[in-house]
Amino acid sequence: MTNDWYLPARNFLGLEPELSDPATAQVVVLPVPYDSTVSYKSGSREGPQAILDASTQVETFDIELRKEICLAGIQTLPEVAPMMAGPQQMVERLYQVARSVLSDGKLLVSLGGEHSLSSALVRAHQERYPNLSVLQFDAHGDLRDEYEGTPYSHACVARRIVEMCPLVQVGIRSMSAEEWAFLQTKPPVTTFFDQPQPLSDAQLDAMVAALSPEVYITLDLDALDPAIIAGVGTPEPGGLGWYETLRIVRHVAQRRRIVGFDLMEYCPAEGGTAGAFTAAKLAYKIMGYALEAWE
Amino acid sequence: MTNDWYLPARNFLGLEPELSDPATAQVVVLPVPYDSTVSYKSGSREGPQAILDASTQVETFDIELRKEICLAGIQTLPEVAPMMAGPQQMVERLYQVARSVLSDGKLLVSLGGEHSLSSALVRAHQERYPNLSVLQFDAHGDLRDEYEGTPYSHACVARRIVEMCPLVQVGIRSMSAEEWAFLQTKPPVTTFFDQPQPLSDAQLDAMVAALSPEVYITLDLDALDPAIIAGVGTPEPGGLGWYETLRIVRHVAQRRRIVGFDLMEYCPAEGGTAGAFTAAKLAYKIMGYALEAWE
Amino acid sequence: MTNDWYLPARNFLGLEPELSDPATAQVVVLPVPYDSTVSYKSGSREGPQAILDASTQVETFDIELRKEICLAGIQTLPEVAPMMAGPQQMVERLYQVARSVLSDGKLLVSLGGEHSLSSALVRAHQERYPNLSVLQFDAHGDLRDEYEGTPYSHACVARRIVEMCPLVQVGIRSMSAEEWAFLQTKPPVTTFFDQPQPLSDAQLDAMVAALSPEVYITLDLDALDPAIIAGVGTPEPGGLGWYETLRIVRHVAQRRRIVGFDLMEYCPAEGGTAGAFTAAKLAYKIMGYALEAWE
Amino acid sequence: MTNDWYLPARNFLGLEPELSDPATAQVVVLPVPYDSTVSYKSGSREGPQAILDASTQVETFDIELRKEICLAGIQTLPEVAPMMAGPQQMVERLYQVARSVLSDGKLLVSLGGEHSLSSALVRAHQERYPNLSVLQFDAHGDLRDEYEGTPYSHACVARRIVEMCPLVQVGIRSMSAEEWAFLQTKPPVTTFFDQPQPLSDAQLDAMVAALSPEVYITLDLDALDPAIIAGVGTPEPGGLGWYETLRIVRHVAQRRRIVGFDLMEYCPAEGGTAGAFTAAKLAYKIMGYALEAWE
Amino acid sequence: MTNDWYLPARNFLGLEPELSDPATAQVVVLPVPYDSTVSYKSGSREGPQAILDASTQVETFDIELRKEICLAGIQTLPEVAPMMAGPQQMVERLYQVARSVLSDGKLLVSLGGEHSLSSALVRAHQERYPNLSVLQFDAHGDLRDEYEGTPYSHACVARRIVEMCPLVQVGIRSMSAEEWAFLQTKPPVTTFFDQPQPLSDAQLDAMVAALSPEVYITLDLDALDPAIIAGVGTPEPGGLGWYETLRIVRHVAQRRRIVGFDLMEYCPAEGGTAGAFTAAKLAYKIMGYALEAWE
Amino acid sequence: MTNDWYLPARNFLGLEPELSDPATAQVVVLPVPYDSTVSYKSGSREGPQAILDASTQVETFDIELRKEICLAGIQTLPEVAPMMAGPQQMVERLYQVARSVLSDGKLLVSLGGEHSLSSALVRAHQERYPNLSVLQFDAHGDLRDEYEGTPYSHACVARRIVEMCPLVQVGIRSMSAEEWAFLQTKPPVTTFFDQPQPLSDAQLDAMVAALSPEVYITLDLDALDPAIIAGVGTPEPGGLGWYETLRIVRHVAQRRRIVGFDLMEYCPAEGGTAGAFTAAKLAYKIMGYALEAWE
Repeated sequence: MTNDWYLPARNFLGLEPELSDPATAQVVVLPVPYDSTVSYKSGSREGPQAILDASTQVETFDIELRKEICLAGIQTLPEVAPMMAGPQQMVERLYQVARSVLSDGKLLVSLGGEHSLSSALVRAHQERYPNLSVLQFDAHGDLRDEYEGTPYSHACVARRIVEMCPLVQVGIRSMSAEEWAFLQTKPPVTTFFDQPQPLSDAQLDAMVAALSPEVYITLDLDALDPAIIAGVGTPEPGGLGWYETLRIVRHVAQRRRIVGFDLMEYCPAEGGTAGAFTAAKLAYKIMGYALEAWE
Repeated sequence: MTNDWYLPARNFLGLEPELSDPATAQVVVLPVPYDSTVSYKSGSREGPQAILDASTQVETFDIELRKEICLAGIQTLPEVAPMMAGPQQMVERLYQVARSVLSDGKLLVSLGGEHSLSSALVRAHQERYPNLSVLQFDAHGDLRDEYEGTPYSHACVARRIVEMCPLVQVGIRSMSAEEWAFLQTKPPVTTFFDQPQPLSDAQLDAMVAALSPEVYITLDLDALDPAIIAGVGTPEPGGLGWYETLRIVRHVAQRRRIVGFDLMEYCPAEGGTAGAFTAAKLAYKIMGYALEAWE
Repeated sequence: MTNDWYLPARNFLGLEPELSDPATAQVVVLPVPYDSTVSYKSGSREGPQAILDASTQVETFDIELRKEICLAGIQTLPEVAPMMAGPQQMVERLYQVARSVLSDGKLLVSLGGEHSLSSALVRAHQERYPNLSVLQFDAHGDLRDEYEGTPYSHACVARRIVEMCPLVQVGIRSMSAEEWAFLQTKPPVTTFFDQPQPLSDAQLDAMVAALSPEVYITLDLDALDPAIIAGVGTPEPGGLGWYETLRIVRHVAQRRRIVGFDLMEYCPAEGGTAGAFTAAKLAYKIMGYALEAWE
Repeated sequence: MTNDWYLPARNFLGLEPELSDPATAQVVVLPVPYDSTVSYKSGSREGPQAILDASTQVETFDIELRKEICLAGIQTLPEVAPMMAGPQQMVERLYQVARSVLSDGKLLVSLGGEHSLSSALVRAHQERYPNLSVLQFDAHGDLRDEYEGTPYSHACVARRIVEMCPLVQVGIRSMSAEEWAFLQTKPPVTTFFDQPQPLSDAQLDAMVAALSPEVYITLDLDALDPAIIAGVGTPEPGGLGWYETLRIVRHVAQRRRIVGFDLMEYCPAEGGTAGAFTAAKLAYKIMGYALEAWE
Repeated sequence: MTNDWYLPARNFLGLEPELSDPATAQVVVLPVPYDSTVSYKSGSREGPQAILDASTQVETFDIELRKEICLAGIQTLPEVAPMMAGPQQMVERLYQVARSVLSDGKLLVSLGGEHSLSSALVRAHQERYPNLSVLQFDAHGDLRDEYEGTPYSHACVARRIVEMCPLVQVGIRSMSAEEWAFLQTKPPVTTFFDQPQPLSDAQLDAMVAALSPEVYITLDLDALDPAIIAGVGTPEPGGLGWYETLRIVRHVAQRRRIVGFDLMEYCPAEGGTAGAFTAAKLAYKIMGYALEAWE
Repeated sequence: MTNDWYLPARNFLGLEPELSDPATAQVVVLPVPYDSTVSYKSGSREGPQAILDASTQVETFDIELRKEICLAGIQTLPEVAPMMAGPQQMVERLYQVARSVLSDGKLLVSLGGEHSLSSALVRAHQERYPNLSVLQFDAHGDLRDEYEGTPYSHACVARRIVEMCPLVQVGIRSMSAEEWAFLQTKPPVTTFFDQPQPLSDAQLDAMVAALSPEVYITLDLDALDPAIIAGVGTPEPGGLGWYETLRIVRHVAQRRRIVGFDLMEYCPAEGGTAGAFTAAKLAYKIMGYALEAWE
């Protein structure tokens, strides 16, 4: 059998075996095909596979960083099996999975799936990095205490996170009166609301100041302008641009250590080729920024 | 304000107030926009609204029965609010809702939503009609004891039903080895597997013989050929034709009393105008057959 | 310029100039991109172009008739310009257009567009063929006297036709109480309701008997099973199969002279490649049947 | 029956009965599902329902205004019944409907439907507010005197409006030579053509200066960049951004009284979840701005 | 790491490692994502992955055969890398790949991709099984000698095959005059044209008689009715039904040895969930029939 | 026959015969429906027809230039017939076609189709304009020497061009390590990478300085932000805006002579109405800019 005859496997980027080898990879990609509590458009369970498929078309050479980021090695795990008894049970399973991966000291990149899953990922990272803080890209506050009968709803994930560690939010442009009232109680939350112009340098500095040395990024793709990624469960007009998102992440990555991150809520049905590709490239760009400070 | 200026409300069939009046309606339509345990294609939570929207285009005069079935009065309830803690909690809520509706002695027509919900509906009907048996139209056995961590999965609904009352299945063309083994244990289940030709008269008689005098019909729309309704969560080639489905229901309705029924698993994303309309007309046809024996 | 360098024009079948020459063509295809009175799904204004585009992929050799039907010459006219003041004005314009074409003694094949347009086509044909009768393929009776404020609605086209000449309907499976009542008044209408089995030979003979020597066929594509052509404005489950439709047309064509026909209500948005191709091939098959008796 | 069991009705925002009560609501939402004269992509007749459905996901708390706008009460009327004899007849009907609503002194918010309908709305508003001027958001001038055989075409609506009162246009980036010539005749029209940068403060002031104290806003959604709302009948590249649109409306609302407004031409087929949601949120934002000056 | 945490890999059926082990598998699935010569709708290059994805939802237990067919072991190879210099070069590469696989004596199941690829597969099989004959399911004759400048076009694949071995065609309903004329020259081709009724027993016997003891099946999915699988490059109305297709294959499999087969031309863009699932299930059914005679 | 009865032909803009007359037209539009070497999403073969169809809705009056550009006369050629033996053969054919058109001294505007075709167009233009340079709008470098077995791949087109004449690239945001290394060898290529802000005046001047007096523009539509045109084979986040693209072209057109141009890689499947219209309007805008300097 000649290698040239076949395309590489459909792992993240479609990497050859030597670059996706579990033994040497510094990065681990974890697909979590689960959405059960979403209130509007479902389908983010199909997000991880769509992002992986699209990633095989992402150029591995990064023009900005002028290198092949993938040389660090990127392993792609199989999909986490959904647990359908309820979101609490699924969050518990994902916590166990993430904890197991983190015990190897690798950079864990999770692809969702609904946003409620991120509370499990934050919990596992905080266990390993006790001074963790979280940077949340999102259109919605997600600060409700309970929603549709469960505290594990996607609409509550930031509230669960803030019970664990400090939280910085960016891109927010939708919030209930209850969430607004909660913010007035001075919880450890710093919120940058979406604004017509990109964040100023002063705002970026304030963002960094609010973050601890070790940062977990949870990125609900609806933080971006729906013109860029229409395929999300609850699109909101306005939102971050492509270069603006990269600028924020790189600014943070150069001043704090990104110890893990997730991209959530991609719904392929309306995202199209462009949406899936954009999500895949965004994951690769953040990997590159994070790895700059990894050693 | 002149009535002619406005279209009627978007209730089932778009009926004028006098024909959809709760005080006099013999039929109650209950939309249940919930899908959380489905394993393949999600989206049946949007099924009820799509069927209601399409129903406004269904001709109210029935050529076969030569009458306006809607003269019996058809009330459309608001949508049942989803309960996202898990399927067990949602099934419990729906049971409470259905029980409340049935206490008025009306014909309850439920529109799903995922098939797991039907166990709540059967439970409520059986409470009111103790000699109930169930006729299940389905491509899949749904006889697993547990699936993806819960006994309330869509893949287990027939198993939950058979724990309550006798069950007749028709259209079945997919079953796991576990389900096949279960059938060999002689549970109170009669299964008509899908076959190239329509059911013979003898088979129809055998079907009726296996049913008790009061019958609840649970119809997973994937029982029909996907050529007719592509918009289901788990389409299977083969399946019942349009006239064949009507023939089976009418045959039963003329020999047993249909005390309630549901249409489940309609996923609008791939169903198109034709699929939603077909589901709506099917609901109306079954209403007509059931009401023939209602008084 | 070498001819081989270019594909033929996007006329019906993509015919070379010599086969689509207005001077010699026996058949004239007239696209009418108009839909303004439809009540449910709009978009049939885009039907004619979609059918023409698809027709370039139809094989010109007919296996059944064992010949190249297109050797008779098929001219494709430009699209009729829509007249938006109201359906009455548009019907008047189309009548003028059709009359002009018919004055050359050609076989006129019209592609719609909404069904209300057919009353103009029948009027023009009847003027030329005074003993005309009409064979209507349709899911709906279209026998209302007025609908949504106009007698020129798509829902009234058969009523307008029956005011002009005898009418035979086939495939009907939806009718209002008003239409049913109208049929009881013994108008010159023969209706074959859609049935689970194909029409019997006796029924076909009765159909022919009800038709005069010169027949115009108006074919609302929703007469066919939506499994075959989903892209229609008002799909109805059940309906004619592909071979069944061909059998009916050929049976009539061998016993009566088809002097013109139309295919109406194709809506590309949900019809897909298969729907457009099927409509185009159906137009070509009917041409072939009609031309067998043309000389 | 427990209220918690059910979701609220599918009115604008999915409001509970007390907030959508006709007796107390200050705002009335009127859906007008009509499109008959459009020349390119049809389907805006399905726009109102899509916007209403999406509105149930709009957060009722407004971060910018820091209040629940809906506390003013928002009634949703049933859909206006289409009148298919022609656009003139439909415009007449809508005028009667709007006049009846306005007699109660409420803020009327109309959801289209094709843009030609707005001439009826302007006429009804002008009758009640004689010093009315109109602010038109649009990609197209819509200043033709007649189009496709009727002066009631969507392409003529601004010409009809300017026959009634002063007109200010913004977002314009498409105009025929005839319209350009008409503008040279110095009609009471002020046109701000779409430009690469947002309107300057000076331009905004000039806009306000050209408006009378009482302003009706007619907003063809194609005024916005199609990247934001692709689902319009005639998309044009360029166009207003989300925050730019809000800025213009708020600037005007703080200096003039907005006495009514409409959102027209939303075509769900290509708009997706994001487009419908954006239209719904835009309607709610404009309500908020308008109500600030309402008492 | 607990196995229960993860779903199996996205191989054919989503089989666990022990059932997809190259060392023991009797069946090898080969995905070939290539379409370059198609004339109408492209996209079959995405067919293999869509079929593999859908196959993970196919029930592994076969009700008809009453066993788990997959116990024979089914290895899924990586995708063959496309060779874009031209179809001749790609056919040559695929021949090399197939030859290599066949040297292990396994049942090779290829998933396309455009139909022209099948000539490579037939060549490789004939080399190993010199008395090979081919059974072609197809809507089109594919018997042109050259098309659009190449003898390796999808429209020529049957002509290439008949140059190698005897050929039986079924489902044919489109053919050019050139192909018809070729058939009159008495080549070793037996053609069963598509007909309104399923093939009779006599026809099935004639089909078997025309086949040699070792049969390769090449199945262009457009052989089936487009109502069943709309997602093909060149859909043709009419065509084989689901049970009819199974009946033909099983009839042959019980009388001849099926030594390999392919499923070609699946285009996901219009196939939907139902189309991909149907293709996957069909592949599994044919495997089951073939394996009955494999030992 | 009255001209008013019919719409004009579906040529570019839907121009009347006198404005599209080959004898007098200064501009020639050439549709090339071919895509065979694309690696990701296919379908650009359907691009030319989609752009032509959409162009009939483009307003012929240009607000910016204040004139009817089409008065120069715009002939639309039939589609170039695809040559399926391989991309080399197709490129050769297109070269012959283009050469033939250019011999008349007209402005040739080609609509693709895949980008590899542009090497044929550049070759034909360079033959006529020996001092030609090329301005490439693109997201990708396209500077590979060979890709997937052929030097005629879409991924190699810029490398083929730079073998013929100087090249300026703009919008680039994806490049392989091989391409990056090639650029370090100082080939006659000037690359402007995509950047968060529009090009500065200094950058525009540098661009002009790098171009010779006669310029051919090859525009891969993926150069634009996918928010504007999602329907391209390989979308990349970031990219040029609408007004930014126009500004660059006009800046060049006022300082260099644009002797021909192409728009490539439009894939209708995901482009929607907005994408096709935007491509058509862009073609018309560039025509206008080019013609300003044509005489």
